[in-house]
Amino acid sequence: LVITIALDAMGGDHGPRVVVPAALAVVKKQPDIKLILVGQRDPLTIELVRWEAMEHERLSIHHASELVAMDEPPAQALRGKKDSSMRVAVNLVKEGVAQACVSAGNTGALMAIARFVLKTLPVIDRPAIVTTLPTLHGHVHLLDVGANVDCTPEQLLQFAIMGSILVSATEHKPHPSVALLNIGVEDIKGNETVKKAAELLRASSLNYYGYVEGDALYTGLVDVIVCDGFVGNVAIKTSEGVAQMISYFIKQEFRRSLFTHIAGLTALPVIRGVRRKLDHRQYNGASLVGLNGTVIKSHGSADSLAFEYAIMEAVREVKNQVPQYIGRELMPMLKRING
Amino acid sequence: LVITIALDAMGGDHGPRVVVPAALAVVKKQPDIKLILVGQRDPLTIELVRWEAMEHERLSIHHASELVAMDEPPAQALRGKKDSSMRVAVNLVKEGVAQACVSAGNTGALMAIARFVLKTLPVIDRPAIVTTLPTLHGHVHLLDVGANVDCTPEQLLQFAIMGSILVSATEHKPHPSVALLNIGVEDIKGNETVKKAAELLRASSLNYYGYVEGDALYTGLVDVIVCDGFVGNVAIKTSEGVAQMISYFIKQEFRRSLFTHIAGLTALPVIRGVRRKLDHRQYNGASLVGLNGTVIKSHGSADSLAFEYAIMEAVREVKNQVPQYIGRELMPMLKRING
Repeated sequence: LVITIALDAMGGDHGPRVVVPAALAVVKKQPDIKLILVGQRDPLTIELVRWEAMEHERLSIHHASELVAMDEPPAQALRGKKDSSMRVAVNLVKEGVAQACVSAGNTGALMAIARFVLKTLPVIDRPAIVTTLPTLHGHVHLLDVGANVDCTPEQLLQFAIMGSILVSATEHKPHPSVALLNIGVEDIKGNETVKKAAELLRASSLNYYGYVEGDALYTGLVDVIVCDGFVGNVAIKTSEGVAQMISYFIKQEFRRSLFTHIAGLTALPVIRGVRRKLDHRQYNGASLVGLNGTVIKSHGSADSLAFEYAIMEAVREVKNQVPQYIGRELMPMLKRING
Repeated sequence: LVITIALDAMGGDHGPRVVVPAALAVVKKQPDIKLILVGQRDPLTIELVRWEAMEHERLSIHHASELVAMDEPPAQALRGKKDSSMRVAVNLVKEGVAQACVSAGNTGALMAIARFVLKTLPVIDRPAIVTTLPTLHGHVHLLDVGANVDCTPEQLLQFAIMGSILVSATEHKPHPSVALLNIGVEDIKGNETVKKAAELLRASSLNYYGYVEGDALYTGLVDVIVCDGFVGNVAIKTSEGVAQMISYFIKQEFRRSLFTHIAGLTALPVIRGVRRKLDHRQYNGASLVGLNGTVIKSHGSADSLAFEYAIMEAVREVKNQVPQYIGRELMPMLKRING
């Protein structure tokens, strides 16, 4: 069974220079995957020639004349650019030509286009973006991380359900634990939205853990953590900032004297071990859940290795039939909750 | 000129066991500081005897019979416990016996008691909690980090003004730069509250930088970053989680083999250097701004070194007359903004 993935080859900070080598790496390693590079034929051809890969039978170009800029308002990208690489990649999913698409482009535009073209699953108000983070023990799924700046308690419940089903489907865990991100673990803590969402979760059939605070994102206490997109986005960007600062200070300390230089050389394999463990590239590929189809968002600044991971995330979700799984499980779950 | 600080000696996870040695360290190092240990006379006396410090002339006990529990609802602590160590410490500030107070107790209760006893400055809706964070270059002040779960744009403006005046007063910077924490730097990003706050800030006389994302908390780009208390609390707790995870993985890697053990020994001074730089204890002591008086919140799990830093933060704010400064500057600033 061959899986076909459409790649928005023009998106992200680097466009074809990252997407083409990532695509090549995937088709070389995986015999059962076909990739479609969606974008302007000329730059894509140049890049393929550079990699001597014009002839690969499982890698093709699908021309799309326009580009969505990284700072373009979503509505403009949606209405004004019907032939953008992003739009055409999503169209290919809708048409069944591809089973999933991957884009490193403008998040807001991707969300708007995916919603418009693929539509949300029944009863889902808005799709959410799920990201995977490393923890002390395994990893955790956090949603929403930027698609929905204001959320109702009902939406947080929907996120919890979708996150839970996603983990069930991809990790084959029957009852993933789900927590609500809050500013304290006591019942009295938090805003009204979170408190109401906690009530809904307690009444649901989900494996609801309760509230967790920000540090629990990295302890591996639960499988899924739910919050609104504003909070989730701040949490992941803040995490990036902390990690970068620590890494900078470690480098700086090792460079301080001849002795610390030598210590640095000795410690190099250790530092590399830690870096490998925390390498955010292996967590690249956030899933837009709640849609009739699989759409994966890559980090805009992803390099080709990171983009490769995003493609493989798309493959994993297709293999595990995530949207179908969510669609099938969602209704009975919501019915049980609403009585 | 002697500065007197009242300490809630029963607050936090460790109470007198942390507060007493911290207080002793401060009075030993600083000749011009008097400290009042507020709390139950017996446990405080035992602790002082243990440290052979019953006779210190600048360290006294002020008896208070009750305790506020860490998970007690703020309203209950405020109404039901008129003789709690927390309440009496704040009362001492109100009465002018002390110029500031420090507590490691229940944040919500401290905020409620401080507001009730000291009152907010004119035109300030609610006080905010400001924390200081290390960055690549110097440090940054973040507010609010947990006092106000829902904020109006006007409150965010008030936070920006108070943060800016705090930095002016304590760091003698005439025009500190102020940014709004958001989920993107473009104008279209964020929720309505943030967008409206941005308009207010642009119209103000503050040195407004614009939006920043979470990673900017640690780059040292600006002096003050403003957000609502929910987002700010998640940001700092998430940061703690990331730092703990990285530190855990580094330790684990160094323990993996004999070789990495030796590498670890060589790298020890370097790792210590980094740890010293990022030691969160030196940033302990968050300021409650917007009150008629100085109230400092210590981390609940602070050890005695960390609590010492919180006391010194109180001293610094008293010396720089922060509440008076804010009170004096606030009115003209708000008048200019409101026309």
